[in-house]
Order: sequence, then structure tokens, then C-alpha cells
Amino acid sequence: MNVELLYHTPDPERAVATAARLCYAPVGASELMETLSEERIEKVLRTILTSGHFSTLEHASYTFAIDGVSRAMTHQLVRHRLASFNQQSQRYVTFKDEPDFIRPKSVEEAGAQEAFDEAAKAAFDAYAKLVELGVPAEDARYLLPNACETKIVVTMNIRELLHFFNVRCCSRAQWEIREVACKMLELVRPTAPLIFKQAGPGCVKGACPEGKMSCGEPWERVEL
Amino acid sequence: MNVELLYHTPDPERAVATAARLCYAPVGASELMETLSEERIEKVLRTILTSGHFSTLEHASYTFAIDGVSRAMTHQLVRHRLASFNQQSQRYVTFKDEPDFIRPKSVEEAGAQEAFDEAAKAAFDAYAKLVELGVPAEDARYLLPNACETKIVVTMNIRELLHFFNVRCCSRAQWEIREVACKMLELVRPTAPLIFKQAGPGCVKGACPEGKMSCGEPWERVEL
Amino acid sequence: MNVELLYHTPDPERAVATAARLCYAPVGASELMETLSEERIEKVLRTILTSGHFSTLEHASYTFAIDGVSRAMTHQLVRHRLASFNQQSQRYVTFKDEPDFIRPKSVEEAGAQEAFDEAAKAAFDAYAKLVELGVPAEDARYLLPNACETKIVVTMNIRELLHFFNVRCCSRAQWEIREVACKMLELVRPTAPLIFKQAGPGCVKGACPEGKMSCGEPWERVEL
Amino acid sequence: MNVELLYHTPDPERAVATAARLCYAPVGASELMETLSEERIEKVLRTILTSGHFSTLEHASYTFAIDGVSRAMTHQLVRHRLASFNQQSQRYVTFKDEPDFIRPKSVEEAGAQEAFDEAAKAAFDAYAKLVELGVPAEDARYLLPNACETKIVVTMNIRELLHFFNVRCCSRAQWEIREVACKMLELVRPTAPLIFKQAGPGCVKGACPEGKMSCGEPWERVEL
Repeated sequence: MNVELLYHTPDPERAVATAARLCYAPVGASELMETLSEERIEKVLRTILTSGHFSTLEHASYTFAIDGVSRAMTHQLVRHRLASFNQQSQRYVTFKDEPDFIRPKSVEEAGAQEAFDEAAKAAFDAYAKLVELGVPAEDARYLLPNACETKIVVTMNIRELLHFFNVRCCSRAQWEIREVACKMLELVRPTAPLIFKQAGPGCVKGACPEGKMSCGEPWERVEL
Repeated sequence: MNVELLYHTPDPERAVATAARLCYAPVGASELMETLSEERIEKVLRTILTSGHFSTLEHASYTFAIDGVSRAMTHQLVRHRLASFNQQSQRYVTFKDEPDFIRPKSVEEAGAQEAFDEAAKAAFDAYAKLVELGVPAEDARYLLPNACETKIVVTMNIRELLHFFNVRCCSRAQWEIREVACKMLELVRPTAPLIFKQAGPGCVKGACPEGKMSCGEPWERVEL
Repeated sequence: MNVELLYHTPDPERAVATAARLCYAPVGASELMETLSEERIEKVLRTILTSGHFSTLEHASYTFAIDGVSRAMTHQLVRHRLASFNQQSQRYVTFKDEPDFIRPKSVEEAGAQEAFDEAAKAAFDAYAKLVELGVPAEDARYLLPNACETKIVVTMNIRELLHFFNVRCCSRAQWEIREVACKMLELVRPTAPLIFKQAGPGCVKGACPEGKMSCGEPWERVEL
Repeated sequence: MNVELLYHTPDPERAVATAARLCYAPVGASELMETLSEERIEKVLRTILTSGHFSTLEHASYTFAIDGVSRAMTHQLVRHRLASFNQQSQRYVTFKDEPDFIRPKSVEEAGAQEAFDEAAKAAFDAYAKLVELGVPAEDARYLLPNACETKIVVTMNIRELLHFFNVRCCSRAQWEIREVACKMLELVRPTAPLIFKQAGPGCVKGACPEGKMSCGEPWERVEL
């Protein structure tokens, strides 16, 4: 799996704080943008984060390039509707060579590595045979397994990112999308340390919102 | 494939026309709802449809139950973000028996039916073996092919439905989602004949919006 | 103020429970829709409401007709983006007679009723004069006050309604949109008693999510 | 009116083209981002713009600070739901001094300038009196006219911007939001000249989509 932060709104904390302050400021936008002090930015952000008035967090967004992930994962990922996606198509790309297959760790742990690899290879061989027989790639791909590697570009604003981290960094999410979410969180943290300080599953802030601490692996609680 | 219209806003054309007229009417809502004549409804709808002021079409929505479709199809379907979905999970359902597999017609046409069926069966056998070895169903499913049957519930309002029909009834869409879209269109037509009269790919109204009539199978042009 | 429930998805609790169960049921959609028992519906809804898996609540929606409200209120209302609106236009409607003006109770309480009414009347007179002088209604309306009465049609699905009630039934919302929200809640409650049982500001379920019980008027806590 | 481009995705055309190409490229994201040639970017963008596959345009966004505009205008502006807004509140800001009022040109043209200014001043005086009498600002503002100046911060991605320019640069939009839209378009053009080359009302590309060239002021037709 490879998750890369492709680009993002420059200086996101300053951007968000400016958007939040602008409506109440006696000075113009560009002056405010330049003169807002670090202390003021921190104070504004703390107010936003503790009051739950998250609309200002929509004014900064992040774009990620993700590859080496399965289509099982992307089928979950694209269910987040307040986001933008571009994904490698299995309709317009014909695989000449065997693509990578994402093999869950639990397969190894069960000693089923070989069975998995053989089945994946057999699926690709059947795909290749269909293509050879003249079946269009978009139809031959019906034999490709969920494990099949794909690539996707994702853009989310900070408000949606916080929601995404909330539900997908949680141990109740499947391991693959949880890994993606955690890597995304690692990448955005340094760009906006205060905003993302309490990012993660609900247990970071307090009680488990699903009412289940049964996971046995809550995140360490973080104070803002 | 089975597409069923589960329920919808009652009397959708009256509903939409009432919503459109209400803001300009001297009488109250329920009175208007009851007294709007068929002629008036038709006139209001024609104005909406020809002027392109589609926001009123959001006030009626439809819920469909779809099964016997592949996860290749649903991965496309859930990309429509102005819609609501609930889908059968491969995480929480463990297949005991071999599920159905969706086999594209092009496979038969290429004489590859047997190869397809064998490959699908082999994929399920590998899945079942992994489950037997203790791999969680959510991970074993990485071996299940795109062809694997799934079920999904979909709700869209009329505005989004018209957009959906526009891009997915088009011959440039893949056959499976096109079949779903066309069946949905068949089901909604009788409930709101005027609203859906020009529903379908762009060629129904005029020129192909992708600038490609190359498909060779444009829909018959329909006048409102 | 007049808030009317114009129409809604028939039998919303059955609809939502069917949508939720369908993906896991061995029987078809229409069979399930008809045979789901009251007990089963209640059990499914309790699971949805306590687990926070609200996506199924999007499969039922409600349409309201609201009039006798100010444009101050509607400017707040239309900020809810996961909803559909149609509003009386001040561009295309020319007021011949003085429209109603919404007068907050606090005005009476301050003994400023007369000052308010005179100012509103003066504003309308100035508007009428501009129209008489040939200023288009869409520009003359720049003199009309926020208090000016308007009408609006609103459609929201249940998930959005619950969010709307959460932020707008709260005493921190302004009195007018709070009144609208509370009337909407009264209207939907009988149609889906269990789903809306805990609807309202956060204090209905537990602690104030804004961390401020300072309002002094929390709602009574309700158990599901 | 003052419209300022506060910040935006850096190098938007490169960003969009990278997002579009990434899924089909044999190289990694950052390598592609750096090595994509100007010629390649142009070719990719032309394909996107002519084929109508606009989803890639969502991967770049723009944030504007707008002030010196009326609340008549912002009530229209916030109806665009695929956008993010933060607006100066009339609830939490108490005007001590008379705010600016936006006076349409048509008022001057009708020789009604004085009548307008007097009415606006009278409205503010009544507002101030109510505040003095102890009416909360959020209620006193019911007397403030639509003309009352406000400030708003707006973020839209390119796909939504193109839609916004399409409906709001059109002569059928009211003059004030049209001016805002045209200024926004001027500001974004230099940052992504090819993407915004055909931005504007439908007449830029061809026939009027409302079927009305009656406006008498179509934009000059532009070839991509």
C-alpha cells in the first residue's frame, strides 16, 4: 500500500482561521491573511474545535494518491459521498501482466498463503484467457477478485477528513481501509497539528460512540 | 437481475407541481395539493422540464431493491453521490453455499462460458477453504470475483434519477448498469409519465452530449 | 407561522426497516416489505438508532410547506445543504399590498411594537414608491426588511431531519427557526414514533454537545 | 463590492491533469506531478473539457472573500449547496454605526436615489432604537433591509465553479450575483486559463440552454 499526499491548501491552519475570522474582522481579507498571529490562529482553532462549529474546516482540502490497495477497500472508500474520487478503470485498462493482489495478513496467519496466491493466479489466468478469446476487458474483469490492486485519487476537505478518520481509523473498520485512513492521518498531521490533534476514532476524545469498548484497543486519549 | 420499485413519494407529479406552485399561490398548501387540476399540473411540469429549473424535481423520491447484480456494477452505482444506498455486506455475511455469479453475455458469445463458470466455482472453493482454515469472511472474500452477486437498496430523487438515466441508459455505459438503469426507468415511467417522457441518454432530446453518435444505437427522439 | 407536512414516504418505519433488512434477507423485497412484523421493525430500528448507523434513515423523506416566516429565518434554513428547497421569489413577485412582517416577541417585551410596525410600514411604502418610479421589483426589494414574510417548501430525509432537529430545536438556535424545527418535529413524530423518540437537541440523549448547559432550559431526557 | 481570491490549490491545471492521469500512469504520484509536461497537461485538460467528464475538476478548489454585498445576494449565493460558506452573522454582530447599504443602479436611473437612502437610514435608525430599548440584535435586525451590507467567505471546487459561472454569469441572473460571479471568473482565469476558457453562460459554447436568446446580450462565443 502506498498513500501519498499529493497537494493541499497551503498553510491550512492559517487558511481556516482566516476564513473563520474574516466575517468579524474590520480589515480586509489579504491583510488579515497576512497579519493573523500564530497565537490568534491557535485561539480561533481551539474555539472551532471545541464548539463543534466545523463549517470553517471545509475551507481547506487535501488530495491523496493511493495505490497498491484492493477493490474491496475502494468499494468502501467511495461510499464517502462528501469527497472527490478518480479511480483506475478496469473497463479501459486491459491487464497484460498479472496485477498485484492484496493478501490480508489473516491469510498468512491461517497458513493459507499458498492457497490464496494460487487462486489469485488462477483468476488472472482465466481473465487473460477470456481476453484472448475476444471477451472485452470490461467483461473479462468479472473474474478478477476483490483482491485485485487498484489506484485511486481522493480529495476531501478537513471537515470530511475528521469524519473519515473518526469512522475509519476505528478498529471496527476493516484493516485495509483503517491502514489507509491512518496513513492519511499521519500525512496531514504535520500540516495542521492542532486541527488534527484529536483526529481519530471517538475514543481519542472520550467514550466510544458505538457504545462498544469491546475492541480492546482504544486509542490513547488526547487533550486539545 | 431483479429490479423492484419498493416505494416512492405518492402521486409524484402532483407533489412536484404543488411544491413548484406553492410559493406563488394565494391558497394554503393542503388546499393547493387537493385542488390543483390535471391541466395545471401538466402545464407546471412542462415549464419545469423545458426551462431546466430542476430543483422542484427534488421533492419526490423513489426507492428500489436490486438483486442478482454483480459487485462490478455496484462499484459503479455507488459513485452517484446524490443518492442513498444500503448494500449487502461481504464482511458480515459468510457465504455457506456458492453465491450466484453474474456472467456477461459476451462470455457466451466468445464460447467461454465453461471457462468462466469453472473459474468462478474455483474462486468460491478457494474462499470456502480460507473460511474453513479460520480466515475471517471479510478477508476470505478478497478471493471472490467482481461477478459475485450482491443486493442493494437505492433511493434517488427525480432530479438525480434524470441525471442517472442520462449517463447510465447511454450505450457508452457498461451493459449491466445500463440494464439496471433501463429497468428503473421502466418502473418509474408509469408513476410520472410526463416527467420521465424525455428521460434517457442525451440523444432522446437532441444531439449526443459527448459529441459521439458513434455508438450507432441512439434512442428514438422524443418530443415533450 | 404555519408549518404543514405536505407528504412523506408512506409508512416510514416499515420503509426504513425494510431497506435495512433487505440486504440480509433470504426473501424478495416486496415479500419482505409486506411480511416484516411490528416487533421485527422495532428491533431493527432500535439497532439502527443505538449503533449510529444512520444511512438507512435516508430511505424515507418528508416535504413541508412553511409560510408566515421571515427571510431572516429562511436565510438560516437554506444553509442546510442536504435538503431541497423552493422559495417564494422577491424577484418575480411584486408585492401590491403590504406583506406581513414577522415581529419577534422581544420587540413587544421591550415596548417597541409601535416603532417596529411603523418602520416596517415605512419600508414597504418606500418599496412601493420605488416600484411606482419604475424600479424593478427585484431591486426595489433591497429596501424590504428581513422581517418580510416568505413561503418555502422543504424536503429532508430522516437522517438530515434528525440532524436539523439536533441543532435547530436547541435553545441556542434563534427563536424563529427553533419554532419551525419544533413544529416540524411535532408533525413527524406520529408518523414514526420510535425513530423520532429521541429527536431534538443533544440534551435529550445526554450531555450538551456544545459543552454548555448554560441555556438553563434543557429538554427532558428521553430513553429509547 | 469587493471580491478577493484568498487562496486556491497551487498550480490547478497541473493538479487536475495529474489527478486525471494518475490512474493510468505507470509511474508514481509525485514523479508524475513533477514530470507532466505542459503539452501533456493541455491535452489531458482538453479531453476532460470536451468529453464532459468533469469529476477530475473537483480536485482543485478556490476560496474567495466577498464583502460590500447585500444579503439579497447572499441569500441567492448560499443556495449553491456544493460549496462551503462562512458569513458575517447579524445575530452576533451588533451594528453600532450605520452599515453600508447596497443601492442598485436601477434606483439611480429612476431618480429614486434619495428616497432609497432615506429609507435605508430610517431602517437603521429604527434598528438602533430597538437595540437601545433592549431588543437583542438578532431580533432588532428584522428591521434591517435586504440592502444591508454583509461579508462572506466562499469555497468551491472547479466543477462547481463552472456550474456557478454557467448560471450566475448569465444575464438572467440578478445584477449583483452576476457581478460577483464575473469578478470571481476574472480572478480564477489567470490561474487556469484553459480550464476557464469557456467558462460563463451557455451562450459561450453554443445555444442558450434556457432556449431564450431574448436577453439580447449573449457572450461572445469562445472556441476551446
